[in-house]
Amino acid sequence: MKLICNKDLLLQYINIVNKAVSNRTTLPILECILLTADEKGFLLTGNDLELGIKTASIEAEIFEQGEIAIEARIFNDIIRRLNGENVTITTDEKNAVNILCGSSEFTIMGQSGEDFPALPEVEQNQAYTLKQNNLRNMIRQTIFSIAQDNAKPVLTGELFEFNGDFFSIVSVDGYRISYRKNNLISSFQKTEVIVPGKTLSELNKILSQEDEELVSVYITDKHILFDLGTAIMVSRLIDGDFIRYEQSFSEDYKTEILVNKNELIQSLERASLVSRDNRKTPVRFQIKSKSLEITAKSDMGTAFEEISAEIDGQEITIAFNPRYFIEALRSIDEERVRIHFTASLSPCTILPVEGDSYKYLILPLRM
Amino acid sequence: MKLICNKDLLLQYINIVNKAVSNRTTLPILECILLTADEKGFLLTGNDLELGIKTASIEAEIFEQGEIAIEARIFNDIIRRLNGENVTITTDEKNAVNILCGSSEFTIMGQSGEDFPALPEVEQNQAYTLKQNNLRNMIRQTIFSIAQDNAKPVLTGELFEFNGDFFSIVSVDGYRISYRKNNLISSFQKTEVIVPGKTLSELNKILSQEDEELVSVYITDKHILFDLGTAIMVSRLIDGDFIRYEQSFSEDYKTEILVNKNELIQSLERASLVSRDNRKTPVRFQIKSKSLEITAKSDMGTAFEEISAEIDGQEITIAFNPRYFIEALRSIDEERVRIHFTASLSPCTILPVEGDSYKYLILPLRM
Repeated sequence: MKLICNKDLLLQYINIVNKAVSNRTTLPILECILLTADEKGFLLTGNDLELGIKTASIEAEIFEQGEIAIEARIFNDIIRRLNGENVTITTDEKNAVNILCGSSEFTIMGQSGEDFPALPEVEQNQAYTLKQNNLRNMIRQTIFSIAQDNAKPVLTGELFEFNGDFFSIVSVDGYRISYRKNNLISSFQKTEVIVPGKTLSELNKILSQEDEELVSVYITDKHILFDLGTAIMVSRLIDGDFIRYEQSFSEDYKTEILVNKNELIQSLERASLVSRDNRKTPVRFQIKSKSLEITAKSDMGTAFEEISAEIDGQEITIAFNPRYFIEALRSIDEERVRIHFTASLSPCTILPVEGDSYKYLILPLRM
Repeated sequence: MKLICNKDLLLQYINIVNKAVSNRTTLPILECILLTADEKGFLLTGNDLELGIKTASIEAEIFEQGEIAIEARIFNDIIRRLNGENVTITTDEKNAVNILCGSSEFTIMGQSGEDFPALPEVEQNQAYTLKQNNLRNMIRQTIFSIAQDNAKPVLTGELFEFNGDFFSIVSVDGYRISYRKNNLISSFQKTEVIVPGKTLSELNKILSQEDEELVSVYITDKHILFDLGTAIMVSRLIDGDFIRYEQSFSEDYKTEILVNKNELIQSLERASLVSRDNRKTPVRFQIKSKSLEITAKSDMGTAFEEISAEIDGQEITIAFNPRYFIEALRSIDEERVRIHFTASLSPCTILPVEGDSYKYLILPLRM
């Protein structure tokens, strides 16, 4: 292989495929980036067997085709620090890689490209199309409530539901449910899959924040493929049946409050200071006729907060893990939220003041 | 005690005394901030027995004098998150502290102010006066080469030398020497003391970056006091004789080079990438007639760098720990530096192109 390409462009693409490079593995080849120069152009691939990313062709002058796997960390470190504009990369038959740029010359040992695992084949028949920025927000707004342990593997991922013109993402960790809904730009048949949390957090780092950029999603039995234009990401899916979460959301409620989201976040953060060393210490909500009182108590002392709210329905006292409330509220972009309560031991639901683009369910704690 | 003061002002002073609050100690009172309201006004004190900070009087309306020790972390967390403008602090005879601000009310347990250790008395007769920003820079430019272990306690601090109109700071870790010199604004008799590294790194966080702010330094047998105007900091001194470092700097040299500092830093950083996993792997300098070549070699591969330099004297090959060179060069603000070499196994010295405001000595490694 011999080619010349722009250093900054190369670095940008290394940062993309790096999201699929393994950090610690017993298979050293998975810590590598595959460089391929062939008739399709120059492209990079990262693949940790759960998740794979392959870039679109990178502008380069190719003098000799070939492929080589290079340890991602050293390759990234070197390219990042080079002081020239263009990089010349040359390999020899012993897999030594020569990198020439500006006043620097590096020679490092690579591995044969043949040993690098190929990305799974995903048939690209039916595409669900979304705005990259929308998908990005929906993941950010739900990913915090995926389950952290492996007791129920399906809960370590998020449910993607494609249904008619709508698309929804749901995460459930046993104590709460986060649900977000959005429009599809194009859609075909109804589909449900469970995508690993790790895939989604890496995908989120490379999804564009520009509103006009689109992502096409392709699904097979075992895999999901995201085509971002600059790169494709392929991930395995989680096998199994997701929890039937819909039945947890009830239309009934006894008390509805309308409250400023930031005021509520700040009050909860302050109240939870006195229970800092024990995140399981509940904060207590006392919903009166015109205000919401929040109190917390521990060995450390007591906190009392009062915030104004529009309240409709019965007075109620209920306790929560403040972190669950704070995380849900932080994921909401609107200024005000609606909250439905039924009883001291029934879950509450956080809803938008208008529309149905999200719903968050939180289980109470015993007082 | 009962008083009202501005929240932001209080927070600003908490952040200052926090630098002298102990994080982990078997004496819980050392994790506290002492609040004192007396005829001198309202002030805060932190004291971990090595280092103490007492603020100047904080603007406050005092309704009832008194003193109380409050756990610094919770006090800081609460004050930082309050949403009102003014804070009312009230204590009762059982040392409960009530904090009232905006829509929040906290009650936390404090400890009797009588249990809080007093700061050591330091006679404020003779003041050495410096610009805060100058002292700040001098500490930053030398502190990286204090010894990290306690084998030689005097080397875990820095030597402060007040001598006539000059003031210098020196640190020595057995492999290198960092020396900075500056003018005193006022001075009296010649003095040498060893100030603990921890004191200097905390002092640096509260020294002003404004050029017009001054700091007065007072010294006794056991202690050093820095008066910053907004606060005083008192530290114990390190007992013992500092290393006679002057004799290590020789006026003789065989080769002098003049080089761009940033180019040299960047070349060294790149070259050391191939020895990333072993910081002790040397980089080799080959000083030719018109250029400086830097090479590094390890199992990982090889690096070769070439930078232009003005060279006067003999050609020489010498090896160094690249980190020592990089840290010294990073602490230099000027664009170009002068470096003196004598022989492959003799130390080299980094000097300013003009003047004598600094000198850095670095021991070579065997190749």
